[in-house]
Amino acid sequence: MLNLHGIFPPVATPFTERGDLDLDALQFNAHRWMQTRLRGLVVLGTNGEAAYLDGDESEAVVAAARACMPADRTLVAGTGHDATRQTIRACERAAKAGADAVLVRTPGAFKGLMTGEAFVRHFRAVADASPVPVLLYNFANNFGVNMPTSAIVALAEHPNIVGMKESGGDISQINEQVGATPARFEVVVGSAPSLYASLCVGAVGGVVALANVAPDACVALYDHAVAGRHAEALAQQRAITPLAVAVTGKHGVPGLKAAMTLAGYRGGFPRSPLAPAPQAVVDDLRATIDRLHAAPGLA
Amino acid sequence: MLNLHGIFPPVATPFTERGDLDLDALQFNAHRWMQTRLRGLVVLGTNGEAAYLDGDESEAVVAAARACMPADRTLVAGTGHDATRQTIRACERAAKAGADAVLVRTPGAFKGLMTGEAFVRHFRAVADASPVPVLLYNFANNFGVNMPTSAIVALAEHPNIVGMKESGGDISQINEQVGATPARFEVVVGSAPSLYASLCVGAVGGVVALANVAPDACVALYDHAVAGRHAEALAQQRAITPLAVAVTGKHGVPGLKAAMTLAGYRGGFPRSPLAPAPQAVVDDLRATIDRLHAAPGLA
Amino acid sequence: MLNLHGIFPPVATPFTERGDLDLDALQFNAHRWMQTRLRGLVVLGTNGEAAYLDGDESEAVVAAARACMPADRTLVAGTGHDATRQTIRACERAAKAGADAVLVRTPGAFKGLMTGEAFVRHFRAVADASPVPVLLYNFANNFGVNMPTSAIVALAEHPNIVGMKESGGDISQINEQVGATPARFEVVVGSAPSLYASLCVGAVGGVVALANVAPDACVALYDHAVAGRHAEALAQQRAITPLAVAVTGKHGVPGLKAAMTLAGYRGGFPRSPLAPAPQAVVDDLRATIDRLHAAPGLA
Amino acid sequence: MLNLHGIFPPVATPFTERGDLDLDALQFNAHRWMQTRLRGLVVLGTNGEAAYLDGDESEAVVAAARACMPADRTLVAGTGHDATRQTIRACERAAKAGADAVLVRTPGAFKGLMTGEAFVRHFRAVADASPVPVLLYNFANNFGVNMPTSAIVALAEHPNIVGMKESGGDISQINEQVGATPARFEVVVGSAPSLYASLCVGAVGGVVALANVAPDACVALYDHAVAGRHAEALAQQRAITPLAVAVTGKHGVPGLKAAMTLAGYRGGFPRSPLAPAPQAVVDDLRATIDRLHAAPGLA
Repeated sequence: MLNLHGIFPPVATPFTERGDLDLDALQFNAHRWMQTRLRGLVVLGTNGEAAYLDGDESEAVVAAARACMPADRTLVAGTGHDATRQTIRACERAAKAGADAVLVRTPGAFKGLMTGEAFVRHFRAVADASPVPVLLYNFANNFGVNMPTSAIVALAEHPNIVGMKESGGDISQINEQVGATPARFEVVVGSAPSLYASLCVGAVGGVVALANVAPDACVALYDHAVAGRHAEALAQQRAITPLAVAVTGKHGVPGLKAAMTLAGYRGGFPRSPLAPAPQAVVDDLRATIDRLHAAPGLA
Repeated sequence: MLNLHGIFPPVATPFTERGDLDLDALQFNAHRWMQTRLRGLVVLGTNGEAAYLDGDESEAVVAAARACMPADRTLVAGTGHDATRQTIRACERAAKAGADAVLVRTPGAFKGLMTGEAFVRHFRAVADASPVPVLLYNFANNFGVNMPTSAIVALAEHPNIVGMKESGGDISQINEQVGATPARFEVVVGSAPSLYASLCVGAVGGVVALANVAPDACVALYDHAVAGRHAEALAQQRAITPLAVAVTGKHGVPGLKAAMTLAGYRGGFPRSPLAPAPQAVVDDLRATIDRLHAAPGLA
Repeated sequence: MLNLHGIFPPVATPFTERGDLDLDALQFNAHRWMQTRLRGLVVLGTNGEAAYLDGDESEAVVAAARACMPADRTLVAGTGHDATRQTIRACERAAKAGADAVLVRTPGAFKGLMTGEAFVRHFRAVADASPVPVLLYNFANNFGVNMPTSAIVALAEHPNIVGMKESGGDISQINEQVGATPARFEVVVGSAPSLYASLCVGAVGGVVALANVAPDACVALYDHAVAGRHAEALAQQRAITPLAVAVTGKHGVPGLKAAMTLAGYRGGFPRSPLAPAPQAVVDDLRATIDRLHAAPGLA
Repeated sequence: MLNLHGIFPPVATPFTERGDLDLDALQFNAHRWMQTRLRGLVVLGTNGEAAYLDGDESEAVVAAARACMPADRTLVAGTGHDATRQTIRACERAAKAGADAVLVRTPGAFKGLMTGEAFVRHFRAVADASPVPVLLYNFANNFGVNMPTSAIVALAEHPNIVGMKESGGDISQINEQVGATPARFEVVVGSAPSLYASLCVGAVGGVVALANVAPDACVALYDHAVAGRHAEALAQQRAITPLAVAVTGKHGVPGLKAAMTLAGYRGGFPRSPLAPAPQAVVDDLRATIDRLHAAPGLA
């Protein structure tokens, strides 16, 4: 049984200044994350610059992460491509390299033709072929298409589709996804600023960029929420939100990597056409991290 | 002190088949709502077809509602126009006709120029002039502009601005609005599908179209949430969501009015260019209402 | 027969610093425009801040413009409101005050319900009641709804609907509107940067903000185009585009009014929540105007 | 010197029913296109389902097309990827396989970070490395980012960047791109419904899906326009627009392939998640093709 109950970082992929994959840095980070109570790792997601990696690099990232993780931590690998065929190939390679499950984003080419029917066709074919369980991945603002709940309900019947990641942050959509699917289909949320509210409406965990930088702060929120300590969970949500926003919408992947470096991880460089965060962003991130550490009740 | 703690319907404005204002129907509804535990009424909102009413009609609606309401129920009137000058005039008329507070939507003409600075200028001038307290009203999807939290924070310092209605349903934005403003500034949510989650993150009440049709079901959700009965509140949220969606996004004001009629209120006709809901919509609404009534644990 | 063949300014409405209507300034401008070869005037359009005027003010603007215009110049008045009923009332008042035709924007409330059917219902009712010919007004980016060509084709059959203004600047849509309607239905374009291309595909004239500031430069482009002097028309298009962009998308109505003042008209103040153009914008406008005057081949 | 003056089809890539690349069908089509006056071919564009092909398949497509083309016809290959590094690799492979030039779309991951500066950085690095000339490719509606004209102006100075394809169809943007860049930088348009207008404002050619199906009709329009026969060009534009819309926005790549098959080409199957056009679409396409052939003045 795949265990998604908890917090996962969508792992940033470090590159050298020349743009080469830096697996040493990745493994340095993975070892450190394994000393926290993160439930596992999600590699090759949006924040992992998966769009910038080729097939060999992707496989290497999965294997490198797996090598650092005990068996009871869950490793999920992003494998979504625009074509069904390439998505299946990526699932096979990820499984072989050690992924416990795959996270398959909505295909995004030809958006006008990506109807509920097309999503069902695509994900069924992928789930039929994938050696490991499949998680659907919906993120309308990023991928430009929004998977309708009716398609999700149809796909939740497939024995190899075990859940989904919803990153849109639309709380009524998340509530609907949880409410309309059976309990075995688990929903995790991909947006830290709506993590607490998502747990309130039935999400079982979170895959949030902030967990790359401040895993304990995210786990603390999760623990409060599942224990029913609503006031503490809400306070923790408000404490982490500014940094959560800073490492996603505000400063993007370059900001995420800079914040990781400030927090003692090895963020490395982003790949071109992304550029490293400029100094002003680094300064803003440092101040935001300091404010999070100064918040009452946070270790 | 203005009391916003609870549920308000954004009152639908009934018209005759010819398109004339039907104040008898409005008062029939208001008397009936006063027999429930609704905290008060919000007239001349989006769902009240405020955009279709002239100044005299608007004043008549406020006076007609007030005449049906005991003093301890709160009457809020929508008074927002695109120009500051006309908004102020509408506030004066609404106050004179008996409104306890005014709900002032973001001005929507010249969207590219509606910066935080423009919002602050507009709402300060309105709040300076309004005889009764002002509630800001933000609804980006409907009005085409999104008031930044920084502008809200600045406006929350004005002694005559006492809160806001956020109808966008973005839970992280609502959380931010609550967290960044003083406790005296109260946030109510305008989207029934995210009512429970909004109460979790600090909203004090809801102005939701569904309360025109099923006020008790909305009040029950509110009661569960404020009492900390989270499981019951979430179950109630899921029970009401299909009808909430049906009378807003799915079938709009014509659907809302048809549902009111099905529920024993006098919904009346919408005004042209809106047309009454066709029979297929009425049938869908009837089935959706029946399912709500059949939900376990609902009176 | 309504003559739309040529250039019209969508007349800016001057206000005093306090925000009162400044009809003296309006008439000063109108007299000066009548000394150019502008085909006529369009008052109460988007750029006329029509959204900020009440019914009495609107009527006064029409009457003031008419008083400055010889009978052979065409006066068009914007009369569109969200409700059919108020739109009809505005048409009646505009006609009585001297408008030759009315320009009726798409109703914009309840955007999801503004289907082709709703547009046909609305505009037919308006055209049935209007004492003067009706021009449809489509501007999707501004009003948030896009009238489908099929609705326009249906409405073009109405004897009192004589044409339309398309301000979206989508050249294939304009081409389609011209090609799918009978010759008696005339299309004018509302976007100066696409004026030349629009005339190429069959538009008969232009209602362009730039004509408030530089009417002769716009008329020159029109003359070249209708005479088949394509190279000269294109050169003129490129000469006027920077100022055309500056007084619309770039700096909006405050910029338009500032540019009018720089060009010797009386632009006056915008109404709140708009603020006058700041000095940096005025400086940019002055430089842009100077560059237009310095362009080769421009009087 | 790369010759872009004329019409190019963005070549559809035929697949077998199982989803394998069908190079025989591609070469059948290429041979037939070479019997028309098409200026050349553009392979691996959006309509070529480039997003669905891997690197080896892409190279095979370029080589197969080149083998069918005389040296005086221009072969352009799409090589854009999200990462600079993979884009460069694709340019190298396309050049080696016989492409005369590469068409490089805007990178689309991390849209919020795709500033003018990022575009300049990306395209300069690509142009520095590409063995053959580079054409920029901007299509905001499809790729979700809009390259600002200022970035295009900067890039037009690079000796290995010789032009661009603009597929947005915004005529004022195309006019601006032509007007702001030197004559050696050539703009081709990627939207058949705005082909005539684009030629009016200075585009030198068109890469339009319709040319896969009806190359002669597109070339006829081009010939009229460059010869200054504006009335004929406009009539031809109106004749081809319905089919042009049908094979792009209306029915997409599956429609394009069905129309090719109806016109005697071998359209083949689209790749999953796309599905073949259903029968109703095929019927609509057949009727639309028949109407184009019945248009007066068309061979």
